[in-house]
Amino acid sequence: MRHSQEVSRDVAEAAAALLDRLRSRSPRVHCITNAVAQNFTANALLAAGCVPSMTVSPEEIAQFVARSHALLVNLGTFDRERREATEIAVETARQDNVPWVLDPVFVDRAPPRAAFARDLVARAPTVVRLNHAEFAALAGADPTRAALVAYAREKRTTIGLSGETDLVTDGERVGTIANGHPLMAKVTAMGCAASALIAACLSVEQDAWRATTAALVMIGVAGELAAARAEGPASFAVAIIDALHNLDGPTLIAQARVN
Amino acid sequence: MRHSQEVSRDVAEAAAALLDRLRSRSPRVHCITNAVAQNFTANALLAAGCVPSMTVSPEEIAQFVARSHALLVNLGTFDRERREATEIAVETARQDNVPWVLDPVFVDRAPPRAAFARDLVARAPTVVRLNHAEFAALAGADPTRAALVAYAREKRTTIGLSGETDLVTDGERVGTIANGHPLMAKVTAMGCAASALIAACLSVEQDAWRATTAALVMIGVAGELAAARAEGPASFAVAIIDALHNLDGPTLIAQARVN
Amino acid sequence: MRHSQEVSRDVAEAAAALLDRLRSRSPRVHCITNAVAQNFTANALLAAGCVPSMTVSPEEIAQFVARSHALLVNLGTFDRERREATEIAVETARQDNVPWVLDPVFVDRAPPRAAFARDLVARAPTVVRLNHAEFAALAGADPTRAALVAYAREKRTTIGLSGETDLVTDGERVGTIANGHPLMAKVTAMGCAASALIAACLSVEQDAWRATTAALVMIGVAGELAAARAEGPASFAVAIIDALHNLDGPTLIAQARVN
Repeated sequence: MRHSQEVSRDVAEAAAALLDRLRSRSPRVHCITNAVAQNFTANALLAAGCVPSMTVSPEEIAQFVARSHALLVNLGTFDRERREATEIAVETARQDNVPWVLDPVFVDRAPPRAAFARDLVARAPTVVRLNHAEFAALAGADPTRAALVAYAREKRTTIGLSGETDLVTDGERVGTIANGHPLMAKVTAMGCAASALIAACLSVEQDAWRATTAALVMIGVAGELAAARAEGPASFAVAIIDALHNLDGPTLIAQARVN
Repeated sequence: MRHSQEVSRDVAEAAAALLDRLRSRSPRVHCITNAVAQNFTANALLAAGCVPSMTVSPEEIAQFVARSHALLVNLGTFDRERREATEIAVETARQDNVPWVLDPVFVDRAPPRAAFARDLVARAPTVVRLNHAEFAALAGADPTRAALVAYAREKRTTIGLSGETDLVTDGERVGTIANGHPLMAKVTAMGCAASALIAACLSVEQDAWRATTAALVMIGVAGELAAARAEGPASFAVAIIDALHNLDGPTLIAQARVN
Repeated sequence: MRHSQEVSRDVAEAAAALLDRLRSRSPRVHCITNAVAQNFTANALLAAGCVPSMTVSPEEIAQFVARSHALLVNLGTFDRERREATEIAVETARQDNVPWVLDPVFVDRAPPRAAFARDLVARAPTVVRLNHAEFAALAGADPTRAALVAYAREKRTTIGLSGETDLVTDGERVGTIANGHPLMAKVTAMGCAASALIAACLSVEQDAWRATTAALVMIGVAGELAAARAEGPASFAVAIIDALHNLDGPTLIAQARVN
């Protein structure tokens, strides 16, 4: 078995290669996301080299998803039209083999939302990205390493858990990412943007564990670069999009803290 | 009766104490607000130390409101789902004694919106924050000091009137706040964010007059700090969130201009 | 016939005069626009001196439009309520002679959206602003100069085509604008904001060709000024709003590149 430093280097190099592919291919990423997060998410995707779209209209969502390279489903504003659009979008993604990410925002706050999220998990999202409280509400278990691995395996998905240290597991591999900055928690939609970046990475990398790890390294490193020039959360939010836009492979490789 | 300088100092010290409580308690503030304002409002609340939530789904709003420490109802985009959600949210807030703020945006523009706002006022919001034109449309009277005091007393609410000088009255006390900057009028959602901050302050201060005054002093002082480093309205919008995040009690006390 | 340099100077001077009128009259511009773009669009309009409103509620939209000086219809998030609101808004605009702009965002992605856009074009919007792919989907023809002129003439509208060089035609006159910066394509809602500025200009200038040209010169010049101080797309988005706010006639005249 390779030791940790090699794994770290390997993951970071894969992330750098992935970033290059995003820039050269300009994948289309469709996002069903909450109104709070739409603008920031679209700008994060553009900064990473992607073409975002955001419609939630049930009449046209199938066509948008079918022509996209990845789909994000974020439950942050859980209105009727978005729920209806989500059903159609997920079915389309499954039929057309479009990878999709579920971000079950705030499922710890309202049981109907948690129930809806559980139905979506049953349809095997490529990746589920969430935080500790959301995992606990969704899985009915504390987000220990063992619980995360078991959940990923049982649900046949990849879990990206955000926290002080991020953890990514597909039920076999487990990676941790120590990049990031506390200001990331002070900007609304930062987690939503991370989920959108995971979707973007899935569009150019079939290995969901690698794609998820790469996306979380990218946004974590961008966060560290942004913090160095920010004077508070709003200038940080501006700087992290700029940093994502300016990010290059060598910087990613030099700054990634993956285990 | 105490003279004005003492009142001013007393109000400013209360605002400083209130800011500390926001930071130590991290209250949850639920906002039914317009799509234009959601992102900026969420970031303003995060900068003040709060945890914002923004869902407008009728199916889950009761649960969000019941678990929140304050509620904002802003009429800026007055769609059906938001109106339905508002009915449920306000009933929940009343039953669970969650303080709530009404921001009757643009009631001067459309009679149905003004009628809806009047129905809400009849349910005794803890605070109503509005501008001159909105007060005139809502109350059918010019926003003179006497009219504001009479309206607050009759409706058993506290009025926070925004303008070049802000005025706060609960029908007994009247305070004026001379903080702020003209660029605040050039950034969309600035008033909405002020209303959200009032809601936040209500979550840690039962005296609605003190909470409203404190919130308007906070955002006014943050605006002055932001103007010193802004080059236009967009850099001002960034700087005011940074300033709110970095604001401390001594600065508030030193810069408050309350009478 | 005057030579190109004179045309350019004449158009730039008209744009400068138009900007002054925006600032002195503060026209009300109502926008039915997508949730991704609402905040940025509102701030762009405020920076240009206008008063934006954004409601999409069918119950009140007629009153908002009737009291506005111009209307924007943007199809970016094509939900049911927005479609219903659009029908009412356009009828109101036609009855009350309120100029209106159609921005058929992403009609190249979904046939129902393109069909809806074609119905709207049949009602003779004052201006249609779009990009190359959108024109191709809408008109069923490549956006050559001849096709654009023919389409504008047939539909009795003015076309503003965005691209590396913008083109404006009312079926008789053809103008090109070479201002702008590549970062404009990396910020979501930049095109939506351009369309909103066209609506704003229509509110103070009856000649749709002049209004459209002026708006595209304004945002293009602002983009160039912003690029000089930006470090990436997010600081660029901040800087372009600041630049619009600070823009003056002499700068516009000096920097306009119109033919």
